[in-house]
Amino acid sequence: MKRILLTIFTLGFVLVFGSLAAAQTVDSLPSWNDGKAKQSIIEFVATVTEKGSPDFVPPAERIAVFDNDGTLWAEQPMYFFVLFAIDRVKELAPQHPEWKDKEPFASLLKGDVKGALAGGKHAILEIVMATHAGMTTEEFEKIMKDWISTAKHPNSKRLYTEMVYQPMLELLDYLRANGFKTFIVSGGGIEFMRPWTEKVYGIPPEKVIGSSIKVRFEMHDGTPVLVRLPELDFFDDKEGKPVAIHQQIGRRPIAAFGNSDGDLQMLQWTTAGQGPRFALYVHHTDSEREWAYDRKSSVGGLDKGLDEAQAKGWTIVDMKQDWKVIYPHEKK
Amino acid sequence: MKRILLTIFTLGFVLVFGSLAAAQTVDSLPSWNDGKAKQSIIEFVATVTEKGSPDFVPPAERIAVFDNDGTLWAEQPMYFFVLFAIDRVKELAPQHPEWKDKEPFASLLKGDVKGALAGGKHAILEIVMATHAGMTTEEFEKIMKDWISTAKHPNSKRLYTEMVYQPMLELLDYLRANGFKTFIVSGGGIEFMRPWTEKVYGIPPEKVIGSSIKVRFEMHDGTPVLVRLPELDFFDDKEGKPVAIHQQIGRRPIAAFGNSDGDLQMLQWTTAGQGPRFALYVHHTDSEREWAYDRKSSVGGLDKGLDEAQAKGWTIVDMKQDWKVIYPHEKK
Repeated sequence: MKRILLTIFTLGFVLVFGSLAAAQTVDSLPSWNDGKAKQSIIEFVATVTEKGSPDFVPPAERIAVFDNDGTLWAEQPMYFFVLFAIDRVKELAPQHPEWKDKEPFASLLKGDVKGALAGGKHAILEIVMATHAGMTTEEFEKIMKDWISTAKHPNSKRLYTEMVYQPMLELLDYLRANGFKTFIVSGGGIEFMRPWTEKVYGIPPEKVIGSSIKVRFEMHDGTPVLVRLPELDFFDDKEGKPVAIHQQIGRRPIAAFGNSDGDLQMLQWTTAGQGPRFALYVHHTDSEREWAYDRKSSVGGLDKGLDEAQAKGWTIVDMKQDWKVIYPHEKK
Repeated sequence: MKRILLTIFTLGFVLVFGSLAAAQTVDSLPSWNDGKAKQSIIEFVATVTEKGSPDFVPPAERIAVFDNDGTLWAEQPMYFFVLFAIDRVKELAPQHPEWKDKEPFASLLKGDVKGALAGGKHAILEIVMATHAGMTTEEFEKIMKDWISTAKHPNSKRLYTEMVYQPMLELLDYLRANGFKTFIVSGGGIEFMRPWTEKVYGIPPEKVIGSSIKVRFEMHDGTPVLVRLPELDFFDDKEGKPVAIHQQIGRRPIAAFGNSDGDLQMLQWTTAGQGPRFALYVHHTDSEREWAYDRKSSVGGLDKGLDEAQAKGWTIVDMKQDWKVIYPHEKK
């Protein structure tokens, strides 16, 4: 009798706590619809965290890397760091009368953003250099913090930090709860992201990798400062992403998350490692709640990457199908 | 009566656990002699970790940066990364017949290390480039792991990883136990350190900052690799250290530890921040158990830094006086 009672008790225990555990797993990603994408994430995490399994990965090696623009937050109608730079050009214009006759600034100041950016990457780079350099790192941080806490998105009229993807916030938390170290590896500037990523994503500055301009150590009246120079230090895109991961993390990730061809090499580098690997593309398919774009988009273009993801069986998130909500404010 | 018993009990509790807590603090640094250096470390940690104090620093901001050569492990008779490069030159010599007539290789192969290094930094750079480049990052990691687990120091005949400083290992643990994030910021190469720093210092690759050579992403038969190029990417010394801290950590440290003029700017940058700051120089004063050198040494020279440390009241560790043991094997 005692044994029977014990068995019943044990069974009850297993049932209650077993289902609690299952419920917890399900609840970790409440903004994800059930489906292949969500399932693949949960299965991968279970695989690498199961003690004793040949696929077990020690926490120190559970490196997960995330692109930012278009993967963790929106990037339309234009990368947000470009929108910041445009705002800066307008603010700095009185000090730069020469900009009235000089592209890309002239078009920009006339409100013709499209014309200004017709020069492509070179034009963007010129705008970024003119607006990001010539001050100390502390001065820039203050400018950045002011902008990110007040500037509004042209369409939604919301703060940019409100345009982060709720399902991805849950994914970041879920991975960290399972011992992962989460890094950002973005084409955007490091100093554009670091003032707010800890608060918004739970990712501290030292885990934010991005593009950078050069800085120089100088003594100003006996006080050391770092001065920002109008010279590109590193462009963290495409082939640059695995390079930056190597130089700054020093370990190959086991999971990588992106949304464009600019992330393809990062996903290739991640999945080429031995043992279980995970690669995920966020596919922008929701023209109503967000934007729908891929192969032909000048912002966040996803063409080769989509083919390779399909060929290799990487996880592709269909935003329209897979996400119950896009932004945090849509949560009930 | 009840109240008296309770008071006695409470008092006993406070006494027992109070002294336990005190004992724990003392025990965290058992290889440090009591003195100003040890006291200053303990006081600083108490100051920044005391909740409610105006000097309290949240754990996320408790960044501590350590130089490696001469601060965490020895660096005589020559920086260990140079000794590694010399071993590599000898191993690679058969594939480079031209080295017989080319400095600095010719001298090196004749056993004349001093002559080879007479060319100064340029000679060291040439040796490093010739031995560190032209292979993938994974191939280099294997070479490095083999060397560090077998090569012996010319004087002590011990593994290089046995020539780390026991008091500094205790300090690293003590800081981490108090919520600090510990980083290496070294003039040595990142890939020379990362294969062993986690095991030896408890510092994972992503917290190791150092000098680097460029790497390039390439596809070899459909497999992505990173190829090491014979081109300096970043020299992490002097003014380079605050720059690297900014670019890779993105937050000003509150504590910095070095041993040479190459660390001076890192200590200046750290202490120029607002709020409580800590700077410490390890002064090599023990010619018997280790080495004694400072102002005139070509390796780990400490001249301007020593003056500034004295003028500003930074902590100066007198190795001979302050450390009970130097290396782990001396522990009783």
